[in-house]
Formats: sequence, C-alpha cells, structure tokens
Amino acid sequence: MSQRVSRTDTSALVLPKKKEVTCRLDTENRQSTVHVIGTYLKASLKRSSPPRSKFFSVKCTANVQYSISPPTPGEPLSPIPLNGNSVLLISMSRASESENDSKLSVQYYGENKEVLGRAVLHLTAVEISLDVDADRDGVVEKNNVNKGSWKWGPNGHGAILLVNCDSEQKYRNKKPDWEHDFVTKVSDLKDMSVMVLRTRGPAKLPEGYKLTMHISQGHAESVRVFRSRSPGAKENTLLDKFLYTNFVKNYPLMLSRDVLSQEVPYLGGVAETTFHVEGLRFPDNDFNGLVNINLSLLEPIAHDIPETPIFTDTVVFRVAPWIMTPNTLQPVEVFVCNTADNNPFLKGMRNLVAKSGYKLKICQEYVNRGDRWMQDELEFGYIDSPHQQFPVVLDSPRDGKLQDFPYDELLGPDFGYVTRVAEREDVSSLDSFGNLEVSPPVTVNGKKYPLGRIIIGVAFPTATKGRNMTKVVQDFLWAQKVQEPIALFSDWLYVGHVDEFMTFVPAPNRKGFRLLLASPDAGYKLFRGLQSDGHGKAKMFDGQGGEETITVDEIIDDENLQAQNNYVQSCIDWNRDVLKRELGLDEEDIIDLPILFKLMTEGEEKEDGVLRAVAYYPDMVNMIVLGKNLGIPKPFGPKVNGRCALEAEICSLMEGLGLSCTFIDDFATYHKLLGEVHCGSNVRREPFDFKWWNLEM
Amino acid sequence: MSQRVSRTDTSALVLPKKKEVTCRLDTENRQSTVHVIGTYLKASLKRSSPPRSKFFSVKCTANVQYSISPPTPGEPLSPIPLNGNSVLLISMSRASESENDSKLSVQYYGENKEVLGRAVLHLTAVEISLDVDADRDGVVEKNNVNKGSWKWGPNGHGAILLVNCDSEQKYRNKKPDWEHDFVTKVSDLKDMSVMVLRTRGPAKLPEGYKLTMHISQGHAESVRVFRSRSPGAKENTLLDKFLYTNFVKNYPLMLSRDVLSQEVPYLGGVAETTFHVEGLRFPDNDFNGLVNINLSLLEPIAHDIPETPIFTDTVVFRVAPWIMTPNTLQPVEVFVCNTADNNPFLKGMRNLVAKSGYKLKICQEYVNRGDRWMQDELEFGYIDSPHQQFPVVLDSPRDGKLQDFPYDELLGPDFGYVTRVAEREDVSSLDSFGNLEVSPPVTVNGKKYPLGRIIIGVAFPTATKGRNMTKVVQDFLWAQKVQEPIALFSDWLYVGHVDEFMTFVPAPNRKGFRLLLASPDAGYKLFRGLQSDGHGKAKMFDGQGGEETITVDEIIDDENLQAQNNYVQSCIDWNRDVLKRELGLDEEDIIDLPILFKLMTEGEEKEDGVLRAVAYYPDMVNMIVLGKNLGIPKPFGPKVNGRCALEAEICSLMEGLGLSCTFIDDFATYHKLLGEVHCGSNVRREPFDFKWWNLEM
Repeated sequence: MSQRVSRTDTSALVLPKKKEVTCRLDTENRQSTVHVIGTYLKASLKRSSPPRSKFFSVKCTANVQYSISPPTPGEPLSPIPLNGNSVLLISMSRASESENDSKLSVQYYGENKEVLGRAVLHLTAVEISLDVDADRDGVVEKNNVNKGSWKWGPNGHGAILLVNCDSEQKYRNKKPDWEHDFVTKVSDLKDMSVMVLRTRGPAKLPEGYKLTMHISQGHAESVRVFRSRSPGAKENTLLDKFLYTNFVKNYPLMLSRDVLSQEVPYLGGVAETTFHVEGLRFPDNDFNGLVNINLSLLEPIAHDIPETPIFTDTVVFRVAPWIMTPNTLQPVEVFVCNTADNNPFLKGMRNLVAKSGYKLKICQEYVNRGDRWMQDELEFGYIDSPHQQFPVVLDSPRDGKLQDFPYDELLGPDFGYVTRVAEREDVSSLDSFGNLEVSPPVTVNGKKYPLGRIIIGVAFPTATKGRNMTKVVQDFLWAQKVQEPIALFSDWLYVGHVDEFMTFVPAPNRKGFRLLLASPDAGYKLFRGLQSDGHGKAKMFDGQGGEETITVDEIIDDENLQAQNNYVQSCIDWNRDVLKRELGLDEEDIIDLPILFKLMTEGEEKEDGVLRAVAYYPDMVNMIVLGKNLGIPKPFGPKVNGRCALEAEICSLMEGLGLSCTFIDDFATYHKLLGEVHCGSNVRREPFDFKWWNLEM
Repeated sequence: MSQRVSRTDTSALVLPKKKEVTCRLDTENRQSTVHVIGTYLKASLKRSSPPRSKFFSVKCTANVQYSISPPTPGEPLSPIPLNGNSVLLISMSRASESENDSKLSVQYYGENKEVLGRAVLHLTAVEISLDVDADRDGVVEKNNVNKGSWKWGPNGHGAILLVNCDSEQKYRNKKPDWEHDFVTKVSDLKDMSVMVLRTRGPAKLPEGYKLTMHISQGHAESVRVFRSRSPGAKENTLLDKFLYTNFVKNYPLMLSRDVLSQEVPYLGGVAETTFHVEGLRFPDNDFNGLVNINLSLLEPIAHDIPETPIFTDTVVFRVAPWIMTPNTLQPVEVFVCNTADNNPFLKGMRNLVAKSGYKLKICQEYVNRGDRWMQDELEFGYIDSPHQQFPVVLDSPRDGKLQDFPYDELLGPDFGYVTRVAEREDVSSLDSFGNLEVSPPVTVNGKKYPLGRIIIGVAFPTATKGRNMTKVVQDFLWAQKVQEPIALFSDWLYVGHVDEFMTFVPAPNRKGFRLLLASPDAGYKLFRGLQSDGHGKAKMFDGQGGEETITVDEIIDDENLQAQNNYVQSCIDWNRDVLKRELGLDEEDIIDLPILFKLMTEGEEKEDGVLRAVAYYPDMVNMIVLGKNLGIPKPFGPKVNGRCALEAEICSLMEGLGLSCTFIDDFATYHKLLGEVHCGSNVRREPFDFKWWNLEM
C-alpha cells in the first residue's frame, strides 16, 4: 500500500505497520526473534541454505503456523525440493507465556537426501497495540484498524487532538498551557488526548529487545506526549511519596521537540500504559494538522551495534481547527468598552443586552485606554473534540490600545488564546476583525458548509495598489479548512471592513437567515419616495447636536453624492454577486438596507489620492445580532409624522422576520470616529451542535 | 460554484468568470453598460422603480434577449405587476458593430397604469476570451471551457508552464533566463507558453471602459508575462525602427512581481494579442505549482473614482515538475572526473562507454579540483511540456570542489539548472545525490507510477540522533509530485547513500527491471560454498598492491565480522521490506548480490560513537548501468581456477537477464576513499515517452 508522507513533514520515514518482516534462518548459529501477532515473518529458504542443498523440510511447535510460497506439493515433513525463490511465511496466533517458548526448524538435504544442516528459529510472540480514540466516541478502543489514517465525515475515523491553548492558571505567571513542557494541574489532562499502549506477552522480553516511542522532527513541532506513571509504580521512600504529588514526576515528559525517541517500559503479562497527548499549534500554511506517533519494537543485533525496528505501530491525530460562530448561534456574553465619552451608547447596549437576557462584560477604561473597537481587536471562536471543548479567542495583529485585553482578560481555565504575529508594516486597517466574519451554514451547488464560511475583505485584484489582510492571518484562516473562506473586496471602504456593508440575521424560513447588504440604491429609492410624498424638506441629523442638518431634497439634488453612491453600489454589487455564488443565495435571501456613503481622501490616505467610502449617516447594517434582538446604529434620518423614516423602513423589513429592532445612539462617539455598534462590541456565542470532524471534505 | 483559492496564495481574491453580473436600472439618468457575450446582466426591477410603481413593461432591440424571474404570466408589452423580487435577466448573442448599438428599456406604471418613469439601458456587446493551450496539443484553442481549472490524466485539461531555467547565453553573463526580466533572444520564446487574448466588438470600447490583465501577489512570485507587439504596431521614426530590433521593446514586460496589473489595449473588430508566459520557480513546499492569470473588463463610474471589474476571464497554468530518469532509460552522456590518480578507472570507463556507444564527458582537474564524486554533486532530470522539453540539472547543496560544475559547465541553451540552498550546518553526507535515486515505472496495488518513484535515504526514526537529507531538498522532491518519493534508512552506512546497497537494472521480463540489493547473507553463502568446495585458502585482494590479503577461511572464522554483517543484513532487510511494499515487488523481482560490509567509527563520526557500515571489498551494487552494459567495481575476490569467484557469481546472475558485466578497477582511487564506480560517475538519459500530465493523481 502506498503510504503518503505529509508534505509538511517530508523528513518522516515511511513507517506503515509492517505486515511482512524479513527474518534470517541460519544453519550455523541458533537464531531467535520476537514475533508480533498480526504480522508475518518471511524467510528465504535458499539464502542461508548450506552449499549443495537440494531439499528441505520444516518442523514447528503447536503455536506456530507456516506456509511455503510458491506452494510446493508433497508429503508434510518429507523433504521438499528447494526452489531458488522459496519463501517461508511464519505466523503465530497467541502471545507467548514465556520467552522463546516456540520454535521452528528447517532441515536441509543434499542430492541424496543426506542432511546438510539445520536452521533453528526460536520464537517469542507478543501482542503490541498503540491505541487512540480513532472512532471519536471519547473512549480509547483496542487496536482500531483505522487508527493509522484520518478520514473526514460521519463514516470517517481518526483521533483528534486539541491545541492546549487555555491556561490552568488564572493569574500568576499565566500563559497558554502548551507553553509549559510539564503538566501544570491534573485538570490540564482533560485538554489532552488519551493514548494507551496495550501489550500481552511473557513477563519480560528476550534480552536486548525493547519498545520505543518516537515521532519525527517535523511532527515534534506540533505535539508533546506525557506518560502516566502506572498505578503500580513503586513508592520506595517518603521522599518518593512527596515527589509523586509533583505532577512533573507523575506525568513525565515522554516525547517533545527535544526528545524525539524514548524507550517505553515493557510491563509483562497483560498490561496497559496510559499517555496524554497535547497539541502545540493550530493547522497553518506549513502544517496540515496531522501528527503521527509511532511505537516500535527494536531487535538487538550485537553489542555496540544499534538495534533495528522489527515492528512499528502508528497512530494519527488531527489537530482540531479553530472555528468561528455566526450571528445565528445563541449568544453567551456581549463585550463592550467603557470610555470617558460613550455613556449614551453604553446605556443603549445595557438595555438591549438585559432585555435579551445575556451577560454584558464591560472592559473598563484602565484596560481599554480609550480604544473602543472591541470588534476589531479579537474574534471569538472555539475548539472541539470528543473529549473536550472550549472557547478560543483569536487575537488580531491590529494591536490597538486594547491589545492586552484578549491575553490578560480572556485567557484562563477552559478559555483558549491564539494569535498570529505580523510585521508592524504589514498590518493595515484590513487586519481588524470587523473585517473577519462568518456566514451561517449554507449549501452551495450541493456542497455543504454546515459550519458556514469565513468572510474577509481584501484589496481589489485589478487595483494597482491596495490594502490587504496580512498573509499570516489569511494563511491561518484558510488552514483551518472547515469554514472555507470567501475573500470579498473591502478596500473601497476608508476603514475597509466587510462589516461596514454586510451582516447576517436569523430568519424563520428559507435558509434560516438573511444576508443584509447596505444599498445606496435602496437609500435613494427611499429618499425619492419621501420627496414624492411631499417630505422633501424633512431634515437628516435633526436634534443631533452640533451636526449640520440636510434636507431630503438637498440630498437628492447633490449629483456628486449620487455619483459617489453609484460607485459604492457597484462595489457592493460586485460583492453581492460573489456572495450569491459562494453562499448559494437567491435574491430572496438578501435584503437591501437604505444606506448612503460618501467618498473621502483624508488623512494618511490622502497621498495615494484614492477616494474611499465612509457611511454618510449611521451605518445601520453594522448592527449587533442577539438572537431575535438587533442593536442598530440610530440613523438620525428625516422624520415623517415624528418618526424617523430610516428606522421605520428597517423595522418594517426586520419585523417580517420576527426580529425586534433597538436603535442605539452611537453618533458622536462611534459614527463620527468611523465605526458603529458592531465595531464597538463583540459577542461570544455557543458552539455549533455540528461536529467539525463529521464534515465531508 | 465553489472556487478554491490555493492554500499557498490566500491573498488571491476569488475571481471566477462571472456568469451573472448585477447591473443598475435608473429612471433618472440614462444608463449604459458593456455586456460580455456568455454572461447575464441581472437587474432588480423593484430597486430603482419610481415611488408607487405597481406595473412595468420591457422593450428591447433585436440583438437583446431578456427574461423575467420569477416568470410573470401576461401579454408581452402590456404592463406586468411589479413583484418585490422581480429580476430582469439580460443577454446578447453577438458582438456589437458600434458602441451602444443596442438598447433595453423598462417602463414603470402606477396603480392606474399611468406611466411613472422609464429606465433606459444602452448596451454594447463584446466577446472577450483569454486563451491558452488547455487541451495540451501545442495549439492555443479558442475559449476552452476548462481553461480555468487544471485536471490530471489523459482526459484531463489545463495549460502547462516551464520554469525558464535554461540560459540562452552560453558564456558571457550567463544566468538562468528567468533571472532576466526581459526576453533575451527570440529563441527564448520557445521556453515560454503562448497565451492569446481574443476580442470581437466595435472599433473601440465606450468611453472609460478598459481591459486589464492582472495576477495576485502570491502568483507573481512564480510567473512573468511578456506581450508581443501586434504586427500592426506603428514604426514612426527610424529610432523606433531601431528600437524594434531591441527585444525589450518588441516583447514588453506585461506582468511581474512589480507590476501586478496592467491595461491591455483593446484593438477593435476581430483581434488577437499574443502573450508569452514564463515560469519562475518549481513547485515546492510553499507552491503547489498552479498559477492563475486574469483578464478583466473594467467599467468606469465617474471621474476620480476607481473603475470596477464587470467581467473576469481566468486561465490556469501548472508549472512542469522536475523529473528524474531511472537506469532503464536510454543513456545519452556519461560524466566522469579526471583526477591526478584515477587512470585505471578512467581507462575502464572509456572502454565501457565506447563499447556501449554513448558520449563520454570528462570533467578535467582544473574544474573538479580533485573532487571525483560526480554522482554526488548533481542529479540529471528534465522538464516537459507540449511545446518544449529540455534536461535540467539539480545541483546538490553538498558543494564539494565540484560545486561550480553544474552551473558553469551544464547550464546553457536548452539545458536548465535548479538548486536548493541549505544552511551549511544542515548539510550532511546524506545530501549527496548518491543518496537520490529513482525506480523504473511500477504499479503498486493498482496504483500506477509510470515515471517511477524517487528514492532517498534518511535517518532511522527510532534513532535518538542521526543524519538526514536536508529539508529544502526533501521538500523540493516531494513537491514535484509525479515521482512520489520513498524514504529509506541509509544512516546505518558511514557515507550514508542508498546507492551503496541498491540499484536497478533492465530486464527482458517481469516488470522490465530487477532490484539489485547488496546482501551479506549472499556473501557468506558464497564464501561457505567456496570453503566447502575446498577453496578455503583462496585469497581476497590478491594482486591488489599494498592491500593485505585475507583467505576465505579467515573471513568465515571472523565472528565479529559475521555479527557486523548480520546487522547490515537486518538494515538492508528493513529497506527490502519497504521497497517490496512501496514498489509492489515480489521476491522474483529482487536479486541479492554477495557483498560484505564492516563497521567503523572513525573520523568525525567517532564522537557520537555510532558504528556505521562501509563495503568490505569493492561494492559491486554501486555500478553504472548503460543499457545492457554494466560497469561494476572490480571486487578482487578469491580466485577459483584463476577466475574471481565474486565476478563469476555476478556475471552468472546478470547474464540471465541478457546483461553484460565489465569490471572496472576503482580500488585505490575510489573504493579506498569509500566510494565506487556509481559514486564516481553520472549519466544523462533520454526523457520518458510518458507525459507527466497524463498521470492519474
């Protein structure tokens, strides 16, 4: 069988379980070997036959089976003609009670059937199995035939490993557990995968034979193995007893980057040794997520000469991907910042979250230092396995003044942390995680995405220059595989985030959600409707202290603004076409929200002279979605009969879906700083019920 | 359709050919757009309808087709009820003769069928197709439906690109052509792939529309595009005429690492523009070999605002892999070194090569500076495409005194060069290319390897320390994909090369070849046979001046040597089991050659105290294979009736395959320096008839 070596670890020697092991027969010296149940020993009959041998015969003890290939007819036990390519296939069906308790001998004869020599092979049979939870039920079964390969899907197989990226410590010296090369607490063991070595055989192995566990250099970057001391380990002294309370001693490090190979004690009789396997890094551009661990039986040759492996058992783990949670999943906690100036916003959010019944976590000013963009600094996700599951925060390379929040405030017991470090000069506004979203589950031309698809914004490919999400983050997202990303064009926006023109809300029908898109055309349609209904003199921004008002007529008459919005609509339409195709959406799955933009070249962007878009009034699509409650930037639109026409339109569109709209005043302290409600908040959600390993890939 | 972005270029925006393009209808302003034949324009009827619209009707010129979705029953041309989600699908079937020569209009009506407004869309239809040789017949066909994807196999598709790694220059300023960002000679064009832009439409595009060719940053590392000046390009002055003889001007650089996007002139009427595409690097760990090139039609929006693409055509190329040539392919040239001391060897090689009828190339001492290991410094291979094929030397990171030979002496017109650079401290003896071989074509459990499988030697995975082939070379070999490598265990050898214990020779039957393996067991069997036939006193190394002789009896009596050879046999048997499984071999496909080894810990290896093997007498498996003629290290074995018993045995084994053995004396100047005939020579061979793109992957 062809055995593929992972491209990311080509240093690995091909090491499939050996079904056939060449062994030596020798008429000069007594030979002995250890046979592993389930394999065959294969011996060339000719290779070690004495000179002038013409016939041979074979004898063996009861526990030994043999066959001759090619088959030779003839009486059992009577001399058989020796053929140049005759091979003896030897196997045994149960483990030995004692060393060398079985035997096979070959007698060679000359032309006249005179005995020329006799080769004797002493045999010790053992059962050896390195076991993992290859059937993903949380239990380490015995010798699963599929334990050495990994297959996606409900009929798939292969064990799962978590990156041990939470911290059992909450405060002192806190760092992700994988950064320690010892077991910090017993509770840390549940973040690891159990692996069991099961053996059966005589009390000890014949002299010089040993078991060794080993990994390749490449895989050692991604995995660490600890051993559980066997319950029967002796505690000789009081000091020993004391030391056993020390986890380092109770769970000695078995394999790591520095120890690629280590002997494992053979315990004798029927025995089990438990190991705990810890993932050290997430799948990435240079790591496909698969890790092999090998257990070999080594045969001694002679003093001072290295042993050779005669049997290798291999198990494979896949490191669980980091998974994002779309707006359609149940919220758990809502995060916002308290800044000196954002009281109206905070009040609105407090009411909304309380009404919805979720937890509100407020990041205080001494932590956020005035950085209010809670959406942009981090993305909540989780990791999942049959034995353990916990949330993991992805920390953005953006690194505003909120940069310490994810590590200092979120990392902890059963709350993981991961980040990707980029060069300062490679980081742009597109690396903020307002530019990283995920769709609800979709099916696209028959292909299922039960965990949805990640959505990011990048530069337009036809542009001669442009900003992009940094490569290290993009590589990380693509490498997780289970929420295959879609790249949209967001560089046309001044801030450049996809959440400025799109979001998803739950819906009771169709695909279970709607895609909401900002739409200048819908905006103009609404304003023209107001005009033709005689509300042309109604004012925007009325009552919003300090902001100059503008009438519906003035907006419609501004030809420059119309041209700019035609451009914005064409950019959004381009993304709309991509989203329809990549998410398999129909027109009926999309709702256009009436939002106008304007173009600007201010600030640092001035030099490249490129005009980019910002919302003309609070960007209602940039909302927070909490179950059926939406927190929407209050648009301060023109009033008709005392009611904001923009709010009325949104409410009418959302109410049809059973959603309730709460408008939150973010004008002065978010909108004017080029962000809105979504940019200023974040939501941790429940994980999917769907298990990622059941994906069909 | 889901469009996968290559993992190695996640910066690429998803850009499938757009089948449906959202377009705008506007009752206020006249709209016009360019329509690309083969796509649909899709307009929301509701989005730009005047307030209070209840009905609509559609009219269009003869060249325009439309449909309404969802379908609405009713009289053509009579007002149709306006539905919230009604969409107009517009297409055209032939290119326009002049700008805006077609038209579609939508009239909107109120409740009482009074006309409320009319949206007019002026249309210009064009045909645009970026074409490549996607069916691999050497001709660039028109608009192949599969040009945007790549599929292996005889029923596959997708264009092919060569790394332009030869040098049109032979001496002055020689470097691989891909290092120049201009076309050095007209002859260089045949190393590139032709790409054609075909357009049909009016004499010019409507104002502001333009064509642009673009690639992603990631792909720009791997590809460069030149444009052919159209034959009709004007030569206005004598200076122009002069400049046109300059290739830079005749083949201007279109796309490169520094120019990711560039406008392509639209020529009008029925036109073709030719491009030449050049590969810059081989598939590797971080490059899967696939490269996309895009051609977009950009639509203007307004002055000072960036254009948006309304149509994108994409072609894909796969960079041809570097392919090795096994011993079963026809030799072309044999390379050896002339050193101060190697006359007997050179004489033997000269005779053998002359007899076989191939070219002998001797690398003289002023070039090799005493480094005689021609096998180790380089590996010959080739690259292949439907339009071009040439040999390519892979230069080892070994870098002995022969290090300049591949670049200085081999690189040239239609002779390519590639290397991988490793850190000095990462390079070991296992990086010499005596440790890089390739099998003949094999079929393994039904899986075909029509180009054979690469074979390398690495450290044993159970060893706590060991030498390895450096990662950059292993990554390169695995990334070529078409000769999936097999990693053997070669670190047990002092020098550590797979060619010390194995080779392949052609055979008239079975799989067309035999695997030859060094076998201490076969050696002892032969020596015991000699002893039992009364030749125990026959001497090895007799007549080999300066070498101490040893008798057959003495060899057999040396128990330490026997133990060492048992170890060697077990190492070779381990590899034998791997080779049988990975190449699908039977016992009958393998021939064991009688070769003894001994272990040593000398020199730099002393410190790690590991015993490693060297050949006890000239290592006959380390041979050169030239068709049916084998050049074999002369073993200086014990003589029986005046004839060397080892030579006699090899001849008898090889003659059965129709092979002729020539024994070459390499004792003093190769064997004693721990190498043999194969280590001291290299063979460039004919490429396979089989085309790599016909592989089923």
